[in-house]
Amino acid sequence: MTHADLTDLDVAHLLADAARNAILPHFRQSGLRAENKEAEGFDPVTVADRAAEQAMRAILTQYRPDDGILGEEFARTTGRSGRTWVLDPIDGTRGFISGTPTWGVLIALDAGAGPVLGVIDQPYTGERFVGGADVAQMTGPLGPRPLGVRATRALSDAILFTTFPEVGTEAEGDAFRAVSGQVRLTRYGMDCYAYALLAAGQIDLVIEAGLNAYDIQAPIAVIEAAGGIVTDWTGGSAAQGGRAIAAATPDLHAAALALLSGVT
Amino acid sequence: MTHADLTDLDVAHLLADAARNAILPHFRQSGLRAENKEAEGFDPVTVADRAAEQAMRAILTQYRPDDGILGEEFARTTGRSGRTWVLDPIDGTRGFISGTPTWGVLIALDAGAGPVLGVIDQPYTGERFVGGADVAQMTGPLGPRPLGVRATRALSDAILFTTFPEVGTEAEGDAFRAVSGQVRLTRYGMDCYAYALLAAGQIDLVIEAGLNAYDIQAPIAVIEAAGGIVTDWTGGSAAQGGRAIAAATPDLHAAALALLSGVT
Repeated sequence: MTHADLTDLDVAHLLADAARNAILPHFRQSGLRAENKEAEGFDPVTVADRAAEQAMRAILTQYRPDDGILGEEFARTTGRSGRTWVLDPIDGTRGFISGTPTWGVLIALDAGAGPVLGVIDQPYTGERFVGGADVAQMTGPLGPRPLGVRATRALSDAILFTTFPEVGTEAEGDAFRAVSGQVRLTRYGMDCYAYALLAAGQIDLVIEAGLNAYDIQAPIAVIEAAGGIVTDWTGGSAAQGGRAIAAATPDLHAAALALLSGVT
Repeated sequence: MTHADLTDLDVAHLLADAARNAILPHFRQSGLRAENKEAEGFDPVTVADRAAEQAMRAILTQYRPDDGILGEEFARTTGRSGRTWVLDPIDGTRGFISGTPTWGVLIALDAGAGPVLGVIDQPYTGERFVGGADVAQMTGPLGPRPLGVRATRALSDAILFTTFPEVGTEAEGDAFRAVSGQVRLTRYGMDCYAYALLAAGQIDLVIEAGLNAYDIQAPIAVIEAAGGIVTDWTGGSAAQGGRAIAAATPDLHAAALALLSGVT
């Protein structure tokens, strides 16, 4: 089979399948090694993380040799097509080393001006959330289902998620808490799974800071395909990371931005 | 089949199966009703919650007519045997209404002096964690596995979980943060799933406050069967709820208790 036989969506599924196979043998195994990548802070990198990115890079070398690759674990590859595959083999490494089912494999295709296709895959539960120009669907234990955000319009009715209660810097944390203080319910600890829940119509807002491009490009594509909105905290593109807000509706997005956009 | 043909473990599995069947049709459905049970605070009760407890009560009426029932949703039934089945059909209703896979069905058998058999079941992922005198096992997407806590002895190596960052009263929250400040990693938002992760050897400590008996009896049985320890914050029984600490090892338990036991 040559690269011309496979659509981008086909390739994305191949990548997600390969990552699953590379990661699952290491999940919830005793003796899992967690190297400390940064001298400051806690950013474990596992054998699984690297094995999954290598497996995905091998597939791209075979089927999309002209495309670039931006991954978390290895050096950036510049392609000749103007397109870049953006890969985070394990988003939520802290969740992974704790055995939770809320980490995920993030795969996005950036066509040059931002992500046009995205996958959020949870290998352990078998859930896969896919969004792009022609697709907005999840598969999982209950079978295939269409993705679609829900219609919540008021902050007072909204369910808000973020991964860590402290949410970045002190100023970023204060802005987050300004939103959190007005919503119906705030929950923590879901990693990239929170974005998937928003695309699946289960929650209404996700607010995070300190992101990398590979943390947010797949969620952008999945949530936009489901009818939602993802921007930075001033309403601009979040595709290069930093501060991100994902919202189910324009009204919610505007209400949250009014509380977030003053942060410098 | 009569009640004499089934062991308590058989009955526990029947209860968990019935709860799964009652709950799953309501999980991640739009239009899910969440009544507000308490005027103060947020404690949604869903149709699924009640349907599951009714289904479990029907099984106990058939197979264990002499045993009492203590459930979250309906009035206590006093039996003639001195034994009580302790049921929480959906522990983690906030997680449930948010679509997360971290809520669970909790089933325990209290033989009179505390739980001797417990089940933590996650219907959506298909995971079931069972602990008792003769059993310490989980089943799930990766097949059956024995439960067993890990050997972490120092707080500085420990992974700590709790559901809400605020953890009960101000004094309780301060005590929690005294422990949190000494551990390797603190994570939030897992509901009863955190106790299952401890029994499965993935994390080391769970600290919570404001619990009811039906929130903690199943975790006690599962974690004790896996070799861990669950007590209140002074080292006494946690079986009637209130403040609970679950630890993988006696050393960790003692180190955390030293920071928690002064709370009045």
